[in-house]
Amino acid sequence: TIERLRQRASQHFLDSIAVKQEAEKTLPDAVAQGVLAMVQCLQSGCKVMACGNGGSAADAQHFAAELIGRFERERQELAAIALTTDSSILTAVGNDYSYDEVFSKQVRGLGKKGDVLLAISTSGNSKNVVKAIEAAKKIGIKIIALTGNGGGKIATLLDKDDIHLCAPSTRTARIQETHLVLLHGLCDGVDHVLLD
Amino acid sequence: TIERLRQRASQHFLDSIAVKQEAEKTLPDAVAQGVLAMVQCLQSGCKVMACGNGGSAADAQHFAAELIGRFERERQELAAIALTTDSSILTAVGNDYSYDEVFSKQVRGLGKKGDVLLAISTSGNSKNVVKAIEAAKKIGIKIIALTGNGGGKIATLLDKDDIHLCAPSTRTARIQETHLVLLHGLCDGVDHVLLD
Ligand SMILES: O=P(O)(O)OC[C@@H](O)[C@H]1O[C@H](O)[C@@H](O)[C@@H](O)[C@@H]1O
Ligand SMILES: O=P(O)(O)OC[C@@H](O)[C@H]1O[C@H](O)[C@@H](O)[C@@H](O)[C@@H]1O
Repeated sequence: TIERLRQRASQHFLDSIAVKQEAEKTLPDAVAQGVLAMVQCLQSGCKVMACGNGGSAADAQHFAAELIGRFERERQELAAIALTTDSSILTAVGNDYSYDEVFSKQVRGLGKKGDVLLAISTSGNSKNVVKAIEAAKKIGIKIIALTGNGGGKIATLLDKDDIHLCAPSTRTARIQETHLVLLHGLCDGVDHVLLD
Repeated sequence: TIERLRQRASQHFLDSIAVKQEAEKTLPDAVAQGVLAMVQCLQSGCKVMACGNGGSAADAQHFAAELIGRFERERQELAAIALTTDSSILTAVGNDYSYDEVFSKQVRGLGKKGDVLLAISTSGNSKNVVKAIEAAKKIGIKIIALTGNGGGKIATLLDKDDIHLCAPSTRTARIQETHLVLLHGLCDGVDHVLLD
């Protein structure tokens, strides 16, 4: 067993590396576009709202922590909020309306034209993320979508003002690992523009 | 600017790949040990408690979500709890005692001999994680530590029954990216032992 477990762990690293090698070829340009969109949003006094489910909820919160707290260098607090953390809102909306509305209702309640919605879904198909994007578009909020799996339903909702970072894999774990590098790339780029 | 941002995004992928190539050489054995420790814990009716700060809090929650919900395949719910989510506990303990005690008090309140503490810190030095480990050791709880940066203070607290997964980097972002692959490796290994 031990030898098989060791091999599986090793294979995860090798697979993760392969997806990142592929991502490095195609995604840096969209990361740069995402950085510029975020900087423009933040510098005009608007905010970034982030949402996703499961591992992508974790990513949304991780990202908000790096903007409100810090990434690698000290700087001014930046306006970011994860829509995944208020369990009173999540349980109330899930219970009274539908779990599909947990993010969209927050987007309608908190969102303003000029904000950015960071929408994270490895399948590209999570209904509550789809509905958050639809709600954001009605307000004039730009979307930065982190997806995988070809982009799923989310890919069909984006237009040319939006930014699509689609991880080149169909496996949730590998897509999440790529998303984390993309999120770090966005944080680094924002700091670079603001501080260097 | 755009060209520089593109290059930085590309460099993040290349750096992330390099750390994972290094990790693949040294860490699969400890992942296998971690899987066996978790399976033994779960099969004897005990639980995994996970803690960390910032991106590592996100990882703790991501991991609990994959054990309570699912990783890649359907299976029985597995007993995991993130100690990072109850903002009433975090604010009360932070306010009345010290932020350093937010995890250790939960470990003393919820932990039982036979449980596993998944302690995550990229520096290896976060005081509340250190105190959680100290509290766990008094109860006879095995530690699986995810660190970086050589392991920091946490490395000095572990003994040979514990499992140390130290990401070979000193840069927080790179360490977190490696931790995510390690956590997916743990989930995959647990599913492999339980289901195959
Ligand atoms: O397709 P997504 O929007 O990324 O949603 C997937 C999530 O609901 C979670 O599903 C399972 O619980 C696991 O695969 C998690 O890692 C994932 O985040
Ligand atoms: O050394 P650690 O235990 O990993 O703690 C670091 C965290 O407090 C967070 O610090 C900053 O906010 C950022 O580097 C985060 O990514 C990090 O998780």
